[in-house]
Amino acid sequence: MAAATRTLGGPVRPRQSRLRPLGPHEVRIAGGFWGEKQALNASSILGHCLHWMERIGWVENFDRVADGTIGAQRHGVEFVDSEVYKLLEAMAWELGRNPTPELERRYEDLVRRVAGAQDPDGYLHTAFGHEGQRGRYSNLEWGHELYCAGHLIQAAVARLRTGHDDLLVDVARRLADHICREFGPRGREAVCGHPEIEPALAEFGRATGEERYGEMAALFIRRRGHRTLRSTLFQGPDYFQDDVPVRDAEVLRGHAVRALYLSSGAVDVASDTGDAALLAAVERQWERTVSRRTYITGGMGSRHENEQFGEDYELPPDRAYSETCAGIASVMLSWRLLLETGEAKYADLIERTLFNNVLASPRGDGRAFFYSNTLHQRALGVELAQDELSERAEASLRAPWFEVSCCPTNVARTLASVGSYFATADDGGVQLHQFGDLDIATQTGEGQTVRLRVRTRYPEDGLVTIVVDEEAEFTLAIRIPPWARGLASAEHDGEALAVAGDYLTLRRRFGAGSTVRLSLPMAARLVWPSPRIDATRGTVAVERGPRVLCLESVDFPDGVPFEDLEIDPGQPLRSEGSDTAVSLRVRQLDEPDGLPYGRRPEVRSDGSLDARLTPYADWANRGPSRMRVWIPAVIRTA
Amino acid sequence: MAAATRTLGGPVRPRQSRLRPLGPHEVRIAGGFWGEKQALNASSILGHCLHWMERIGWVENFDRVADGTIGAQRHGVEFVDSEVYKLLEAMAWELGRNPTPELERRYEDLVRRVAGAQDPDGYLHTAFGHEGQRGRYSNLEWGHELYCAGHLIQAAVARLRTGHDDLLVDVARRLADHICREFGPRGREAVCGHPEIEPALAEFGRATGEERYGEMAALFIRRRGHRTLRSTLFQGPDYFQDDVPVRDAEVLRGHAVRALYLSSGAVDVASDTGDAALLAAVERQWERTVSRRTYITGGMGSRHENEQFGEDYELPPDRAYSETCAGIASVMLSWRLLLETGEAKYADLIERTLFNNVLASPRGDGRAFFYSNTLHQRALGVELAQDELSERAEASLRAPWFEVSCCPTNVARTLASVGSYFATADDGGVQLHQFGDLDIATQTGEGQTVRLRVRTRYPEDGLVTIVVDEEAEFTLAIRIPPWARGLASAEHDGEALAVAGDYLTLRRRFGAGSTVRLSLPMAARLVWPSPRIDATRGTVAVERGPRVLCLESVDFPDGVPFEDLEIDPGQPLRSEGSDTAVSLRVRQLDEPDGLPYGRRPEVRSDGSLDARLTPYADWANRGPSRMRVWIPAVIRTA
Repeated sequence: MAAATRTLGGPVRPRQSRLRPLGPHEVRIAGGFWGEKQALNASSILGHCLHWMERIGWVENFDRVADGTIGAQRHGVEFVDSEVYKLLEAMAWELGRNPTPELERRYEDLVRRVAGAQDPDGYLHTAFGHEGQRGRYSNLEWGHELYCAGHLIQAAVARLRTGHDDLLVDVARRLADHICREFGPRGREAVCGHPEIEPALAEFGRATGEERYGEMAALFIRRRGHRTLRSTLFQGPDYFQDDVPVRDAEVLRGHAVRALYLSSGAVDVASDTGDAALLAAVERQWERTVSRRTYITGGMGSRHENEQFGEDYELPPDRAYSETCAGIASVMLSWRLLLETGEAKYADLIERTLFNNVLASPRGDGRAFFYSNTLHQRALGVELAQDELSERAEASLRAPWFEVSCCPTNVARTLASVGSYFATADDGGVQLHQFGDLDIATQTGEGQTVRLRVRTRYPEDGLVTIVVDEEAEFTLAIRIPPWARGLASAEHDGEALAVAGDYLTLRRRFGAGSTVRLSLPMAARLVWPSPRIDATRGTVAVERGPRVLCLESVDFPDGVPFEDLEIDPGQPLRSEGSDTAVSLRVRQLDEPDGLPYGRRPEVRSDGSLDARLTPYADWANRGPSRMRVWIPAVIRTA
Repeated sequence: MAAATRTLGGPVRPRQSRLRPLGPHEVRIAGGFWGEKQALNASSILGHCLHWMERIGWVENFDRVADGTIGAQRHGVEFVDSEVYKLLEAMAWELGRNPTPELERRYEDLVRRVAGAQDPDGYLHTAFGHEGQRGRYSNLEWGHELYCAGHLIQAAVARLRTGHDDLLVDVARRLADHICREFGPRGREAVCGHPEIEPALAEFGRATGEERYGEMAALFIRRRGHRTLRSTLFQGPDYFQDDVPVRDAEVLRGHAVRALYLSSGAVDVASDTGDAALLAAVERQWERTVSRRTYITGGMGSRHENEQFGEDYELPPDRAYSETCAGIASVMLSWRLLLETGEAKYADLIERTLFNNVLASPRGDGRAFFYSNTLHQRALGVELAQDELSERAEASLRAPWFEVSCCPTNVARTLASVGSYFATADDGGVQLHQFGDLDIATQTGEGQTVRLRVRTRYPEDGLVTIVVDEEAEFTLAIRIPPWARGLASAEHDGEALAVAGDYLTLRRRFGAGSTVRLSLPMAARLVWPSPRIDATRGTVAVERGPRVLCLESVDFPDGVPFEDLEIDPGQPLRSEGSDTAVSLRVRQLDEPDGLPYGRRPEVRSDGSLDARLTPYADWANRGPSRMRVWIPAVIRTA
């Protein structure tokens, strides 16, 4: 059964918002940098995920529930069901983008197996409630039942938004109804240890037009922060964001993915209910989190322990946890805030996070992934065999799969739907937030049909060409990234345009074939950290365009002491094409004997060398390597 | 029954070693700085520990085993038995030092209750092997059965070494015999997840003269490193030091306390068996660990996650785990290496660690403790109520007690026996390694009776006076701390002595009443970190004598932005008596808006102020406070 057109869209479609997101039927990545990423996802990542989940029994769990033998035979940690659901979501977006019979067959087969595990009353989880298992909702802190349900529902949203109202949507509807009965106003007064059900139910309510799902989401948001979840020896109420209600919190804290999913749900609820105070609370928290608890890569979560945010300014590069899923969750949150407010800073962070955190996860061949994303690798990481299951997220090179494998499927669903984050529309026109080869065809609120072709070699090159394919009067707004403000130039059909502010805004009647050209400055640049960040004092980083660069030891001759390289920030950076090189000094230091503290060290230079920099997201694609983003600067204390 | 004199001694008494440790019958702290610490231990800490363990049922566990009702009623995590044993060890040393009828009564009562829980075959643990409990040795990774046994045996060693061979020694003998049967050459080929049994059995073998205990210790050392312990999702074989045999390892790694207890046992085994290669391996590991993985406070273990060592040069002040028990374990290890080698560097580290890590744990009143010892506190810690059990070692102020409460009892046993670490003897004379008010009466290998009175106000003051109370010919060696080398001066009865090297060595016939005076330079000094430690780049610390100093926010007027203070290392430090002050600049920085990365920040100074420094070990004794050891320096990048 085909869904009504009003349900078409991307992962987020508020009932009303300042900017209207474009769905896959309105914006399409046509090739180029992001086209290659989507092709990699389609040709490699999706199949890789399915292969692993078949191989280690995570799909079989559903079959075992269906045939009644699950109790003794379930595979994986409590929340592995969610990986199957995130893969279903990824497949649904991919089928909306580029359907193939093979993918359709795989998708339908997987949906059928999932559906077979649903209990008659709508409950669906392979780890609880069946013979030989713990009871349903017997461990809300760690059971992840509603978390898994949330991911199934998001997969159903993807299906609805790509034009299908079929089996998985039915399953989601029955599951969501079960949850409303179980946790609604007359049900358990409880929340799930891991947020996710909140944004899922809110979107499902929007996609189905059923208000009760959004109301359930709102209730979960309201209930949280009252310490109903049991703390443990190592996880306090802040870990679960159960210490303070969302509307009263000052900053994101605790487990980073939990915090960001919850905030995303809170924005959805604020949008649906017109709760300006709740929206403002999340904006404030975003602001403080970004200014004090976020890595240069956009990565969030600086502690390995509990995968959590650190204190303000606690941002160690070498122990950056910066989980890939937290980057994805940050994109989810910033996108919602962008839609609600139209402010460029949210699109800025999305770009930074996509290029430097999310894209750092998959290996070039899409068959191994970083879970955490360190900004400084001191020792050579271990290269895992392609059939080796990684026990620990700690593995210092990308791993094919993990016992806790949330990141690969999260990357898959994000890449399959990444076009959703590039452009929006409003009454007067179209806003271009990210750069890539795009075909856009949409209508403004004023009823103008806007057809655009955006073409660019960005991020390699800074030229972005936008061709208007059909005459129309509208406002074209193009985001100017922060590093390009004051430096970018633009023209429309040969007429130079004044570029100021964070969006270049152009209101006119565009003729068919008329062309806007934007030039972004692509010279590499030094970036300094705030002196309040202790862990990066006396260092600088290098960025080029939207990408953070890094030093990688594979680029140095044998014998160069990687830990003793220093950059002289007074020396110019050198570029050739999209390559960037710096001149480094080699610090000569006696091997320490005894404690590494004492008199002022006499640092001598042992010559200099030229070093090529690599985009951070591409590191560790050439075997084990040492790496650093923040390069020690030649410093002089007074 | 009194033990034979040959068993008298301190915690460590090798069969033969380069330096012979002095027992409590030969060296005694007579007052002063360390006397006050021992008095605090006797008057407050011991009773505090017993109070808590009675209150929360950790002692009652033994009664419940005795009356057969333990299964359903056991209190605390698996290894809480060991806290009772460490307290027994502390009491035994204290009874050897300063017996009171009250303490004797408490000690004997506690021993009786522990003894009542021993199974007929010698096994003793309250969490395993009884009705309703898991089977003995069913979880060697996490059960801590041999770990607890080790602490009981160490308590028995303390009893033997202080002249008693009574009930607890019997209990230990039967337990050790059980372990030899169970894990000996014809028993289980296994090791305990947490080392401790190794040094315990080695010392028990020395104290009882029974070789089989030392052989069992040697077997445990040999067996480790062959990956027989099961890894988990988050703890790999390195966590347990089960990745590589001790003799093949290059550096200490994994869980810090585990690594240091194991190394201590390995030195004991190497000493007992004359295994020079094993000893050399531990010396190498100590050297690399100290030069690359140790904090300025002597603290070890830089990761909260798994309480473990980080990589080389991974030493973040703000996330210094630096567990108190790891500091104590480091003293145990360095003491053994000092006895074996006679090298000053081991005594240097003992001093640094005692003053700046171990003594940082107890609050001034001895009724609350740091578990981890951060070197940088950004946010005000929470002050716990005196009857509040801390769930998490994370508590940022000292806590009265913890669910995992290894540190308070470890502090107690260390303070009660701390005099053991001050001096040694050898054939030719006496070596003074640490400074304090000491009465020493011992014999050299050459048969000379040496009676010394050491008096000093150290670490407040640098004058150390040593009076020889009985005429004798011997060599007096006095350690010169590293910071005093080349600056210290000394005289003997008015005759100036040449002070060079790491020990001032004086061979002569000392008349009764003759006096050696050592003057150590007590001006505060700046200390620079190695440029390889990323987390302290561009900072300096201040030390005075053996103590690391720190800035504490309670010493600043309200409104001073603690995170924006900088020191100009070109400005002199100022001293008045034992007070040290520095001049600081206040960095003026706009509150960041957006990411804390960008163009070179323009840092302006907003005036300067004078700041008093506090000995690090004394911090957080005046309510919640921000604190830092490493002070950002005014730096200039090129």
